[in-house]
Amino acid sequence: MIPENFLAMETLNPDSKISAPKPFVGKAEAEGLRAASSLSFFFKPDSIALVGASPRPESLSRIILENLKLMGFSGKIYPVNPKYKEILGLKCYASLEDIEENIDIAVLALPASKVLKALRQGLGKIKGAIVISSGFKEIGGAGAALEAELKNLATQSGIRIIGPNCLGIYDTLSKVDTFFISQERIKKPASGGLSILTQSGSFASLIVDEIAAEGIGVARIVSYGNRVDVDESECLFFLAEDEATKVVLLYVESVKEGRSFLEAAFRCAAKKPLVAVKVGKMKSGSRAAISHTGAVSGTYEAYKAAFRKCGILEVEGYEELKDACKVLEAYRPGFGKRILILTNGGGIGINIADACESRGLAVVPLSKAKERQLLKKIPPFAATGNPIDLTGQVRDEHYAEALKIAFSGEEYDLAIVAVLWGPPLITEKLVARIKETLEALNKAAKEKRQPQKPVLICSPGGAFTKKLAKKFEAKGLPVFYTPESAARAAAILSVKTSESRNRAF
Amino acid sequence: MIPENFLAMETLNPDSKISAPKPFVGKAEAEGLRAASSLSFFFKPDSIALVGASPRPESLSRIILENLKLMGFSGKIYPVNPKYKEILGLKCYASLEDIEENIDIAVLALPASKVLKALRQGLGKIKGAIVISSGFKEIGGAGAALEAELKNLATQSGIRIIGPNCLGIYDTLSKVDTFFISQERIKKPASGGLSILTQSGSFASLIVDEIAAEGIGVARIVSYGNRVDVDESECLFFLAEDEATKVVLLYVESVKEGRSFLEAAFRCAAKKPLVAVKVGKMKSGSRAAISHTGAVSGTYEAYKAAFRKCGILEVEGYEELKDACKVLEAYRPGFGKRILILTNGGGIGINIADACESRGLAVVPLSKAKERQLLKKIPPFAATGNPIDLTGQVRDEHYAEALKIAFSGEEYDLAIVAVLWGPPLITEKLVARIKETLEALNKAAKEKRQPQKPVLICSPGGAFTKKLAKKFEAKGLPVFYTPESAARAAAILSVKTSESRNRAF
Repeated sequence: MIPENFLAMETLNPDSKISAPKPFVGKAEAEGLRAASSLSFFFKPDSIALVGASPRPESLSRIILENLKLMGFSGKIYPVNPKYKEILGLKCYASLEDIEENIDIAVLALPASKVLKALRQGLGKIKGAIVISSGFKEIGGAGAALEAELKNLATQSGIRIIGPNCLGIYDTLSKVDTFFISQERIKKPASGGLSILTQSGSFASLIVDEIAAEGIGVARIVSYGNRVDVDESECLFFLAEDEATKVVLLYVESVKEGRSFLEAAFRCAAKKPLVAVKVGKMKSGSRAAISHTGAVSGTYEAYKAAFRKCGILEVEGYEELKDACKVLEAYRPGFGKRILILTNGGGIGINIADACESRGLAVVPLSKAKERQLLKKIPPFAATGNPIDLTGQVRDEHYAEALKIAFSGEEYDLAIVAVLWGPPLITEKLVARIKETLEALNKAAKEKRQPQKPVLICSPGGAFTKKLAKKFEAKGLPVFYTPESAARAAAILSVKTSESRNRAF
Repeated sequence: MIPENFLAMETLNPDSKISAPKPFVGKAEAEGLRAASSLSFFFKPDSIALVGASPRPESLSRIILENLKLMGFSGKIYPVNPKYKEILGLKCYASLEDIEENIDIAVLALPASKVLKALRQGLGKIKGAIVISSGFKEIGGAGAALEAELKNLATQSGIRIIGPNCLGIYDTLSKVDTFFISQERIKKPASGGLSILTQSGSFASLIVDEIAAEGIGVARIVSYGNRVDVDESECLFFLAEDEATKVVLLYVESVKEGRSFLEAAFRCAAKKPLVAVKVGKMKSGSRAAISHTGAVSGTYEAYKAAFRKCGILEVEGYEELKDACKVLEAYRPGFGKRILILTNGGGIGINIADACESRGLAVVPLSKAKERQLLKKIPPFAATGNPIDLTGQVRDEHYAEALKIAFSGEEYDLAIVAVLWGPPLITEKLVARIKETLEALNKAAKEKRQPQKPVLICSPGGAFTKKLAKKFEAKGLPVFYTPESAARAAAILSVKTSESRNRAF
């Protein structure tokens, strides 16, 4: 159910300025820090027991075992299953009781009905458990009763539990990977600064595949499913303090406890960009979210107000979320809204301008002074407004000159450079020219104590375009494949977040 | 400038029912048909003169000459350039005057200043001209004066002119390709039923690359640039009657003449789906559209009302336009709004439901009777509402059974089937199972005189997913890679267009 405190958010004025809910220091903060540290073993375990281990190639536990080896997990691994003496060269134990040492994490890959018994055998021996099994609250009836028992066990024993009905943890730092998904079908991302929290296991498996395909790296992903114990708030407290995590992405069907969430989110957003997508916004979506993890997703407006209050960057859906992941790998938000659009295709320039303005960005015209400067440096039929259209006559140096002139100084906060690769006179060297120009501009800005500025590339098209896009990305310039995608990403960067305010002062 | 008649559209109530503007028969229709037939030689030429022909590999005329050969244009080709006797094995003429026979199309690849003289040399010899040169109205001043002369020439001589400042024609039926873009960089689509009209040459070059990458085929594309003579309205009249064209896509910065446009669009939309995207909607976009093709783009609201009145399916921007191209290759719109969502990932199912509802689709719950039937056939923890979530336990046959039960009869108008390829028990055979199930449902529906229904696939993910997507598409099931994309496509199909009304009665 939705906690009362959280529902009270509905009465907040969503247009009020972001400010800290009052009791954000003292008791709550101390509790948060305690929560964060009480979870840290999940992200740095010395030992993992895999309960329900099996050598069968198609078994989930076998996939997990192979993933741990593939990731290079360097701690001890204890397979547990009374049926086997050894699995993949590792000694196999009949139960958690039989293991001589203490264990950081027990991963339970067992039918729901067997989970409680197995866990009880680990009492006093395990710090935490990841219960990947489904068949709990999300199926109602007997499942809900089992989940209540699991909750009691966690409360009474102090064993911290992630799950049930989840994928668990994918962590490029600790090399823990309990995501039981086929390596053949789903690619997993390399190391990076993005951490992700999600109720939905299918979302977790999907987003790793997508961002791996985009070449975006991650730090830690937690899929916590029905969150019988560990929830988004505790994870947020942990990630707020986690140095490896530069950006946090939160996929929310519902939050477990409103007050803690507000505190944790506020704390996290003050330290690093915190992006959230709320799903189950609409009537049918909410209904589905209930059956999905057994939680009620609540009124969307309450979430919207709460997100705003905490300084969370809310994204609208899956597409904007992907854009956010990509752009926040390259830049932190807080730039402001005045956008320069530089293009070699008039049509696409107008598309981008439309998309930017409809997302609240300001496509302000170039100053007359800059327009005069620009006219000397660009092709004869080029348009000098904003968008600046270098036309099909464009050469690499035109892009560099135009960017240098138009994006210098303080007229614009951020720029989208749209490159269509059809025009014959631009070459692969354009990539380096744009990067160098941006670096020179930012160096000059730094000397003048002006703000650093970001360039986003917008490059729609087919195979040739995609090949060149990789070269832009290798230079740290994120590429977006539609005008809308570039505009969404720019709009995310434009926002003055609480983190960016903290950064500035 | 915006014509008065067209501005009058602003006063129309955009919510009024689509109905024919009154004088849509008689004079206007006759004029339209005459217009259509007066353009037909552009789409079935026996001969093409290429004025400004050059053997230099980087020249635009050389690219056009090679494109015509590559396409397999079977008519006569006459290179024209006083500097050469022969180009690529073809006899080269000093001017259009020197060619002995009459010519259907002269393609002018010359600097703007030389266009008029060259054209005058073709008086009485050429039916039409495609002027790809830029440097006319879009640069103002002297360019605008040149364009006025060009307009006079067209009016006085009766030579029909496409352009200037355009790419001209790409036509998979007549094998004409004047799109002077590098084959290495920009791929061109195969033969299909989609025809495209666009002011913007860069848009033309971009969209061919994109839809070629998606495997969508086209009939005819006209990039008409500054449309000194031939405009969107005449082209619409032509495409309305053109049997090879099944769907028309219109990219609009502005329309040249409001009344003709309304008549042509209404006529075309009554015969086949007519999709339009208006760019230059916002302040800055409109400003850019002025300099882009020298036309004023007008108030967006007037266009919106006009589109609605004519039965045009308006799409919002580039992303929706791509979705429309893809979905309309497989299905014609007019299905209705009740959508079934079948998935194996709870999270993505909720995402899709949110995206559908926010676009006006109705995610209505499954009937109790069907829910009971369904429960016998799907995995134990599956959710039976709408979305139906088959969970990670799903097998191929669950999808088939669930689709068969839920999508039979008249509860739903259309379905999105979301497939995440992570779950280990689904196989490539799923593709055929879904296709067969849909065919069987539609066959049964036909026997009962119930409407045929479409399935859209939503399959986000990386390389493995993309590989399987091709198999869906080979079976005529269009695949969308984000929840929003699938929802946009479904929303397009849901609309009852004037064409679908004509089809039904």
